[in-house]
Amino acid sequence: MKRHILFTLSFCSTFINAQQNLVKYVKPIIGTEKMGHTYPGATVPFGAVQLSPETDTISYELNGKYNGDVYNYCAGYKYEDKTIVGFSHTHLSGTGHSDLGDFLIMPTQGKLQLNPGTATDPKSGYRSTFSHANETAEAGYYKVKLDDDNITAEMTATTRVGMHQYTFPKSDQSHIILDLMAGIYNYDQKDIWTYVRVINDTLITGYRQTNGWARTRTVYFAMSFSKPFKEYGLKNYDEKQPYRGFWGKFDQSKNFPEIAGKKIRMYFDFKTEEAEKIKIKFSLSSVSQKNALQNMQAEIKDWDFEKAKNQAQAIWNKELNKITITAPDDIKVNFYTAMYHTFINPTVYTDINGQYKGLDQGIHQADGFTNYSTFSLWDTYRALHPFFNIIQPSRNNDMVKSMLAHYNQSALHMLPIWSHYSNDNWCMSGYHSVSVISDAIIKGVYNGDKNQALEACITTANHRNYEGIGSYIDLGYIPAEKSGISVSNTLEYAYDDWCIAQIAKKLNRTDVYNDFIKRSENWKNNFDKTTGFMRPKLTDGTFKKEFNALSTHGQGFIEGNSWNYSFFVPQDPSQLMTQMGGEKTFTSRLDTLFSMHLPDSFFAETEDITREGIIGGYVHGNEPAHHVAYFYNWTDEPWKTQSQVRKILNMQYKPTPDGLGGNDDCGQMSAWYIFSSLGFYPVAPGSDEYALGSPLVNNAALTLENGKTFSVKAINQSDKNVYVQKMLLNGKPLNSSFIKHADITNGSKLTFYMGAKPKKI
Amino acid sequence: MKRHILFTLSFCSTFINAQQNLVKYVKPIIGTEKMGHTYPGATVPFGAVQLSPETDTISYELNGKYNGDVYNYCAGYKYEDKTIVGFSHTHLSGTGHSDLGDFLIMPTQGKLQLNPGTATDPKSGYRSTFSHANETAEAGYYKVKLDDDNITAEMTATTRVGMHQYTFPKSDQSHIILDLMAGIYNYDQKDIWTYVRVINDTLITGYRQTNGWARTRTVYFAMSFSKPFKEYGLKNYDEKQPYRGFWGKFDQSKNFPEIAGKKIRMYFDFKTEEAEKIKIKFSLSSVSQKNALQNMQAEIKDWDFEKAKNQAQAIWNKELNKITITAPDDIKVNFYTAMYHTFINPTVYTDINGQYKGLDQGIHQADGFTNYSTFSLWDTYRALHPFFNIIQPSRNNDMVKSMLAHYNQSALHMLPIWSHYSNDNWCMSGYHSVSVISDAIIKGVYNGDKNQALEACITTANHRNYEGIGSYIDLGYIPAEKSGISVSNTLEYAYDDWCIAQIAKKLNRTDVYNDFIKRSENWKNNFDKTTGFMRPKLTDGTFKKEFNALSTHGQGFIEGNSWNYSFFVPQDPSQLMTQMGGEKTFTSRLDTLFSMHLPDSFFAETEDITREGIIGGYVHGNEPAHHVAYFYNWTDEPWKTQSQVRKILNMQYKPTPDGLGGNDDCGQMSAWYIFSSLGFYPVAPGSDEYALGSPLVNNAALTLENGKTFSVKAINQSDKNVYVQKMLLNGKPLNSSFIKHADITNGSKLTFYMGAKPKKI
Repeated sequence: MKRHILFTLSFCSTFINAQQNLVKYVKPIIGTEKMGHTYPGATVPFGAVQLSPETDTISYELNGKYNGDVYNYCAGYKYEDKTIVGFSHTHLSGTGHSDLGDFLIMPTQGKLQLNPGTATDPKSGYRSTFSHANETAEAGYYKVKLDDDNITAEMTATTRVGMHQYTFPKSDQSHIILDLMAGIYNYDQKDIWTYVRVINDTLITGYRQTNGWARTRTVYFAMSFSKPFKEYGLKNYDEKQPYRGFWGKFDQSKNFPEIAGKKIRMYFDFKTEEAEKIKIKFSLSSVSQKNALQNMQAEIKDWDFEKAKNQAQAIWNKELNKITITAPDDIKVNFYTAMYHTFINPTVYTDINGQYKGLDQGIHQADGFTNYSTFSLWDTYRALHPFFNIIQPSRNNDMVKSMLAHYNQSALHMLPIWSHYSNDNWCMSGYHSVSVISDAIIKGVYNGDKNQALEACITTANHRNYEGIGSYIDLGYIPAEKSGISVSNTLEYAYDDWCIAQIAKKLNRTDVYNDFIKRSENWKNNFDKTTGFMRPKLTDGTFKKEFNALSTHGQGFIEGNSWNYSFFVPQDPSQLMTQMGGEKTFTSRLDTLFSMHLPDSFFAETEDITREGIIGGYVHGNEPAHHVAYFYNWTDEPWKTQSQVRKILNMQYKPTPDGLGGNDDCGQMSAWYIFSSLGFYPVAPGSDEYALGSPLVNNAALTLENGKTFSVKAINQSDKNVYVQKMLLNGKPLNSSFIKHADITNGSKLTFYMGAKPKKI
Repeated sequence: MKRHILFTLSFCSTFINAQQNLVKYVKPIIGTEKMGHTYPGATVPFGAVQLSPETDTISYELNGKYNGDVYNYCAGYKYEDKTIVGFSHTHLSGTGHSDLGDFLIMPTQGKLQLNPGTATDPKSGYRSTFSHANETAEAGYYKVKLDDDNITAEMTATTRVGMHQYTFPKSDQSHIILDLMAGIYNYDQKDIWTYVRVINDTLITGYRQTNGWARTRTVYFAMSFSKPFKEYGLKNYDEKQPYRGFWGKFDQSKNFPEIAGKKIRMYFDFKTEEAEKIKIKFSLSSVSQKNALQNMQAEIKDWDFEKAKNQAQAIWNKELNKITITAPDDIKVNFYTAMYHTFINPTVYTDINGQYKGLDQGIHQADGFTNYSTFSLWDTYRALHPFFNIIQPSRNNDMVKSMLAHYNQSALHMLPIWSHYSNDNWCMSGYHSVSVISDAIIKGVYNGDKNQALEACITTANHRNYEGIGSYIDLGYIPAEKSGISVSNTLEYAYDDWCIAQIAKKLNRTDVYNDFIKRSENWKNNFDKTTGFMRPKLTDGTFKKEFNALSTHGQGFIEGNSWNYSFFVPQDPSQLMTQMGGEKTFTSRLDTLFSMHLPDSFFAETEDITREGIIGGYVHGNEPAHHVAYFYNWTDEPWKTQSQVRKILNMQYKPTPDGLGGNDDCGQMSAWYIFSSLGFYPVAPGSDEYALGSPLVNNAALTLENGKTFSVKAINQSDKNVYVQKMLLNGKPLNSSFIKHADITNGSKLTFYMGAKPKKI
């Protein structure tokens, strides 16, 4: 009891400085069911360690044979599942591709079982049944009872260390299993090499090397136990273990401290008393075992689990308090869980001593910045990085520096496309680093050498061998014969080129500006005025005849159809409107998009999408049309933006495990929610303008790093009163559908007066 | 012509200080035929780079199926072969197990072929026929004409850089192939991972990671071309290449600079004029690509191949001049080639900046010493390291420091057994690091903390889980049930323990001395007085009944039979003599050993041995009896040592490709030759005594690091005059068959008067 009281006091003490307890609104379980691909485990903001349960370790057989559903297990955990395999230390949040799941730990007792067993027969292996009734998922803390062996698992984290606390029953045969073969998306050949040193009876170090979505990836670790293990051992599952010379001199399967191989599972044996807690500190490094140990020693100095948990939650609370809102609890849950999800990726990829592994697989020192990894840029350039430019500018500055470090280490001389763990996996289309860099420069967030940054953008955009760029430069579009996603690439390159032009303009580089502003109009080359749709064009300059604007398959687009992608000109909605035939046609097309009925064939052929992620033909579950609801602001019917945005906010985000209508995509879906619920959105990052919408909150105060507070007030706001009647900026009438970034950073007050009827112009 | 004159002058200038041209006596081709397992390529003394031709890249299929003769290709080159596959940068010299062969380079022209082809049909691949008539192998230089494509290959080296010079014919299709799959003893699963960055059109860096005899091994490289390549590309031979996400955005097979995979062969294309030379600098590092590049930049600053060659040969000449001899040319060839072979392993395993990868797979800084790798200690403790204590004491001091660094990095807390490339492969029996450490301490060579060194020896010797040590400590012998090599282990442990006792005595650690001097008598527990043979003993204390003193199979010995191993008490020949029944029996047993006839069954079952490596039943091709010919010195018939030693010198070493009677074993066989031809031998390293034999040289002068010169003079020496009539030490009669180490280091003059008849006592 005394302990409990201390905890309560300690927890309260973290809320001095008038901080609200906002951690209580964070429900990491949101998005773990169906399409969200989030994970419920413990992490701190932007933590290198994301310690979370796996409900299945999915293997993928080559030649197209799956033995599990890889796509569903991108985050390792599915709310629908009944068993937990174990707890691993690295996860991607909300992605549609998968990797990581390193260093899976599972406590068991009774007869030692080193194989995970199956979901249908969990007792056939080390996994255990569990129920959500016995599960707690909070920001920075996760707890679950493992029913099969009556063990309670708890975990929390610092930036580079995961802390486990397992409460065992009395047993002579208690075990901690360290499965070094487990991993997310683990096909046969993914395990490249594993190395472990048992330094003493409470400390081991080592590394795991994989060939996955990140092609060349090594993660070093240190693992410390609160209690000495009695015995330890391993099984090597590699069927092709080669000639070992004189290795037979040792029994390497038991108490042998120098371990290496391709497929290894280890165990550590204990004798436990009833309710005895065994704790583990598990730290990571991209550089070395020594750094992993140093990270551990720096970040968690004792064995006080409650203290670590309280610290993790205090950090979260501090970050969440950067925005305080007035809203109903359900909306607060959605809002702060969204904020939580935006503060997970990118992740810190620097050791406590400033070292990190670069794209060139060499060790680098991050001088004057924190290096970050996991850039899901096709998703996150849209709203996540713009959100950071408001609420995490220091981190976003470092993220831009991380991208430029990547560029400097790239033998291809390219900025990251989709990078994680010292690799680029080249996922999706465009070269959207330039959007993030442009937005950070335009908004005054990037404090490094802007001319060097511009050169990196130009070099990337001129990499002729990359996905059609050569043709794009020569012809102004990518011929359909050369790429299956020729149209989305051309559209996204054009937008990215506009971003480069914005940097050039700011730096007075007229030559570059002229070049890239011209390139930014290349979207017109894929626009068919006859049909009013973006469509693939052949080398001979004619449009490809076979064309279906509804289909997402084989039409030249990635994760979207022409109906959605035809609006992908965020850099110049006015010109798009003109090309489409003027405002009336444009508005009508938008209306149709949000109201049309999609045929069943659409869902059959489209990945990453369920009916829940759709409004009419508008696909919110994927990103390409995320800005489109705001396009009515360019017409004389901005009230339609207001109603559509509120519809999306209400339909696509719910405070339930299945509450996300699509992959959260490293926080992009959540960032959309935050912007839109605050009443504004960055339609074209690289511009300093935000389009206004319809705030979902009654009040919001954004505490900025410069010490100022930007506040939003929505008077008379309700589920029905979604239409803006009038607006004041710092008490003066605002007769525009847009505000500037400077309005935010200056600490303005934005007041919306809401009503139930559209305020027509 | 001008260039040639400059070269001649430059070469001559290296022989100032009255240095003789001794490089001309070095024939690296010796030992490349039959059993020697040496290689003919280019290296500098103790060089990290050993750049040598491979006549086959041998693969080993698992489950015991060979597709080539792995044993014969330990050094990659067999004199008997007609084709060369290419030139690789790492080799073991004289071993009986194999590994390395990293980064195989082959120049070709005409149609590109990326597979090596077969020895019977070399034109089916990139390999080429060659003839010894067009081959030159010198210390630090190798040259061969590749007949198939009319290309002359030349190579030389510095410590960490190999330099290649390829003279091409005129061709639009000249190629340099870099085979990153090739390797010595290359079974299917040996290639763990390969990574390459093409930095520009003359520079690439990367690494190769293998799981071979060294279990966890990574070698980093940098490769620089003297001429820009026009194009480059690769083929990935991994049949199980996994899911690659969006890698299809690039054609990765051609001109793609970020390369990684398991099984990769690369090519670089050139257009060449007639007789155009393309040069390559290829550097290695155990630490990083960056260090490899730094090593290259530090060691070879230009593209002058002749200069590099001359420097390499000047370094060799300086080392060889440490011993000058008067002898017939054939003996000079044997002698200096032996000296060459003793100065190859161990190899420098430190980068130019002092960094190296430790046994713990972490990066370490070698402070105040050069770190060495490749310790074939079961072989080399006998004569190679004792030889170093005379002629390379600074290096041997560093080697001891390297062993202690290994110990400090060992999770097992053990000194190296057989270590190479940050791994221990645990080859052979005993823990002979302690012999090397003891000898270096007793002889005043080791200048580090001697008490720490003693603790490392004690801890190693008390590692109960290691190969029967627990039983050995408890029972005084290893029961035959517990180990297939129980007797040789007990004998070797006993000798090693005597070495530890010698250190303890020197450091006044009486407790340790008493313990280990007692352990050093454990050989008696395997000595069967009834038969006079060492033989395996069972747990119950009785000798195993089935026993064959001639057989090398299943008798409790490794690489030897009881006839040879029964003499393995180098630490106490007098006591062995007593146990065997006195001097007469002892002498008679020695006589029989050197005169007996071995049955055919012996050769059928014994590895590492041919009839050439045998004199009677004495096996010189393996090491366990290397000291035995000197045992007559403990009897009153030392003249039999004199004749047997001369017989071995003449029979087992010849100046021909097949001149070595057994594996050179990293220089142990060669060190035996040098000692014995100088007239003395370290029967028990760890003692400061040398047993005298019969010098093969007429005169020898050993220039020591302390500035003194130890000289040997053999008056009236000839093939027939092999018997010592009298001896003088510094002009005074020497009435002993032994000299002290201090006699050498004090710069004594040892004079033998030789005659045709035994000088009987």
